[in-house]
Amino acid sequence: MDQEKVKKRIRYPGLDSKIMSAAQAAEFIKDGMVVGMSGFTRAGDPKQIPFEFAKIAEGGKRKIYLMTGASLGADVDGAMARADAISKRTPFMSDRDMRAAINQGRIPYYDLNLGDLAPMIRRKQLPDPDIAVVEATAITEDGIVIPTSSCGSTDVFLEKGKQILLEINMAVPDGFEGVHDCYIPQTRNMPAPAAIPIMDVMDRAGSIGYKIDPSKIVGIVLTNQLDSASENVLADPAQDAMATNLRNFFLSEIKAGRMTESLFPLQAGVGSVANAGLWGLLEGPFQGLTMWSEVLQDSTWDLLDSGRMTFATGTSITVSPKKTEEVYGNWDRYKDKVCIRPIYITNSAEIIKRINLIAVNTAMDVDIYGNVNSTNIAGSNMMNGIGGSGDFAVNAHTTIFLTRAASPDGRLSRVLPMVPHVDHNEHNVDIIITDLGIADLRGLSPRERAAKIIAISSPDYKPALEEYFRLACERGGHTPHILEKAFEFFENQRKTGSMKG
Amino acid sequence: MDQEKVKKRIRYPGLDSKIMSAAQAAEFIKDGMVVGMSGFTRAGDPKQIPFEFAKIAEGGKRKIYLMTGASLGADVDGAMARADAISKRTPFMSDRDMRAAINQGRIPYYDLNLGDLAPMIRRKQLPDPDIAVVEATAITEDGIVIPTSSCGSTDVFLEKGKQILLEINMAVPDGFEGVHDCYIPQTRNMPAPAAIPIMDVMDRAGSIGYKIDPSKIVGIVLTNQLDSASENVLADPAQDAMATNLRNFFLSEIKAGRMTESLFPLQAGVGSVANAGLWGLLEGPFQGLTMWSEVLQDSTWDLLDSGRMTFATGTSITVSPKKTEEVYGNWDRYKDKVCIRPIYITNSAEIIKRINLIAVNTAMDVDIYGNVNSTNIAGSNMMNGIGGSGDFAVNAHTTIFLTRAASPDGRLSRVLPMVPHVDHNEHNVDIIITDLGIADLRGLSPRERAAKIIAISSPDYKPALEEYFRLACERGGHTPHILEKAFEFFENQRKTGSMKG
Repeated sequence: MDQEKVKKRIRYPGLDSKIMSAAQAAEFIKDGMVVGMSGFTRAGDPKQIPFEFAKIAEGGKRKIYLMTGASLGADVDGAMARADAISKRTPFMSDRDMRAAINQGRIPYYDLNLGDLAPMIRRKQLPDPDIAVVEATAITEDGIVIPTSSCGSTDVFLEKGKQILLEINMAVPDGFEGVHDCYIPQTRNMPAPAAIPIMDVMDRAGSIGYKIDPSKIVGIVLTNQLDSASENVLADPAQDAMATNLRNFFLSEIKAGRMTESLFPLQAGVGSVANAGLWGLLEGPFQGLTMWSEVLQDSTWDLLDSGRMTFATGTSITVSPKKTEEVYGNWDRYKDKVCIRPIYITNSAEIIKRINLIAVNTAMDVDIYGNVNSTNIAGSNMMNGIGGSGDFAVNAHTTIFLTRAASPDGRLSRVLPMVPHVDHNEHNVDIIITDLGIADLRGLSPRERAAKIIAISSPDYKPALEEYFRLACERGGHTPHILEKAFEFFENQRKTGSMKG
Repeated sequence: MDQEKVKKRIRYPGLDSKIMSAAQAAEFIKDGMVVGMSGFTRAGDPKQIPFEFAKIAEGGKRKIYLMTGASLGADVDGAMARADAISKRTPFMSDRDMRAAINQGRIPYYDLNLGDLAPMIRRKQLPDPDIAVVEATAITEDGIVIPTSSCGSTDVFLEKGKQILLEINMAVPDGFEGVHDCYIPQTRNMPAPAAIPIMDVMDRAGSIGYKIDPSKIVGIVLTNQLDSASENVLADPAQDAMATNLRNFFLSEIKAGRMTESLFPLQAGVGSVANAGLWGLLEGPFQGLTMWSEVLQDSTWDLLDSGRMTFATGTSITVSPKKTEEVYGNWDRYKDKVCIRPIYITNSAEIIKRINLIAVNTAMDVDIYGNVNSTNIAGSNMMNGIGGSGDFAVNAHTTIFLTRAASPDGRLSRVLPMVPHVDHNEHNVDIIITDLGIADLRGLSPRERAAKIIAISSPDYKPALEEYFRLACERGGHTPHILEKAFEFFENQRKTGSMKG
């Protein structure tokens, strides 16, 4: 490793004595510890220590309570799940092996609104981390830790962790220094009431990183590896149709005088559907767009390049390998147009309300009355977690959910008589968009909503949904249901593999 | 009517020419109009015009879209429902005849988080009122309308209503003038981002009333009638047990260092259960309590009298007849200890987060994983509406729901395998309290929560809940369910009248 480069990254005096191998560092993570790890949607997670820890812990020899910003990259959660090294996981994951362990009841998972993690730790409602394991761009002469491609909940892990392990990642641009706005509440345990001094998307209220007590650092590991690639897949025709419908919805809002061509600050959920939705804004009259979101995906950078978006802020940069190359290789072009913030700021109810956020998220399935399931397949099996969608959906100016009308193979309707798990309820869902249309639910009673939502369901399932609704209305009620038939689609699926029965 | 007294209440020059009978005033409410009516939980609603309108409209001759702060007093909603005078109702009601019409599908009801009504009108997501019908204490020489015992959403009705009908209620104390803090957003249609300048419970940011354009006033009716009595019933042993458990929960929070003896500002849902819960704080070490809530019920005034509570703010005063006499008869004793605000301020996410609110609300039923139903009986039949519970539950420091373990007659378990309607989901519910104990759900996985919640269920239903949970875990999943059995309690009830089967 080039010593001069290392010196530029580890500037606090005396810390070079703490440089060690990842295997040595991992030894600090003891059995029974609460571990706060940087990382948000495959961005800014430590690249080496977790794998070394998984080796040490193999076979359940050490078990930890693992807290992160959100999902980790590569195979970190998987490696730890296979090693039986996790006694509890919060607030989000998206790994296949960990998912299996959660659904088998082997790993207890606390599926939390992402913006709540740091406040709950500060309020002592969740335990303090014993140790923070954090990827950083640098540590300054003043003891400020500069994050890399995500902030997540790193703030509270560094603040509350009794010990700190740093991974200094030499592969991220030096220019990352200055792109973060690391605002933390002034009174930490029981905050005195004060407004968060961020009034608009571009505002900065904090420092370029997190000031820590350097004596808490017990080890520093040098790494040189970019984040795991985002798992976004390219758009397919159904996604294109949803993106067109989303664009048409915005056009009708402009026409109705409810929005202008700059809309309001946009939040978009993680994944290919929301990503495709934002790409849809590359066409049309949109100008002066801004983004206030969790994750800056490929589409964000394309909108910035197009000149249609003037500023984007989030808690992580999660992009494809090609886009990583473009963005990191041309960092000077972007650095004044983006800002990376802690998740409890990006997901802050106060700011979401203040800036009139438009929330665009993806649903797993929806029901005919406008309730949304984002987490549990068939009511029981965790997919990933609610993420930040709850933080945004509840407090947004306009809350939009996108979902296919049916699964690509047609076996599953994404519009159901009743969702078997509710992550976003009828009181908070304004707009549902499928590849077949737009259901504007604002101001409507449940029965009125059912007509709109059934209208954008798949033709394969529309007759069954209409029949359910008709029979339910015969029985009566404000939100008519026939409880003994409400999950018949799932019964069909259990018996035949298809909801068609 | 004493002319001098009337002059003191109608101070804007020339307005005495607008004084008319309620029957004359009601004629201004035309068929097809959107009507914004003051009134919040039986407080501050117009006392005469609505009944005169119901007479004119009888038999569906005139139908209106009725918006209010929340429920109206006396029999207003009932009279209008029986007259077939309602084409749509939002955001809350609690009348038997209107409930029946809603559940029969005759009145479409938009059951909305109460704090969302004014913002949705200002954003043009709901229609502007054609006419505002508002009870007032007075109208000043400057054209400021002073509310009576509630603010609710009167701000937006006066602002957006093309015409205004006022009822000046001579029966409320002159001293009501000055008790309201009528803050409204500065930029009305598309608010420019700004913090709400209220940092703590006692802060004032607005005016003593709502400045209007007096030329919009088309009629003034003089009334002399107090609000309908609150429907709170006295505590019973189960409510006392819940109150004791709530007090014990707070004591354990103080012991754990998460709260102090002044707790954090308290919100309490409407009704006898939450009221009894607050009475429970008359015992114990509590000092310097404050309240930030929707409704100031009997218990609030008792806590103020006890000296344990220093200040209380809400959007309405809804009290028993005896308490009305005490409060209004001794207004000078209270007027510096209370403040009445618009609902969009009391229910503001920004302020709720800022002041670390403790939200105490009542559940209709809960499930073993911590989801809460507050609105729909057996999933289909509307009881009242979600009210403000969603505004508070999602953004509170600590979110508590109270429910009996079983109905008084034992026929219904209030702890279910799966709630048939979700108003507050597992991600937002921290604590469930029944008469049989406390379930602290913070940091727990669904399976861990199930053990805690089943432990505080009724002994009559515990074996069936345990069996469901055991079988569901055998099938597997993060939130184990057996969809075809999830509503078996309701099937039992349909067949035998009791969930016991």
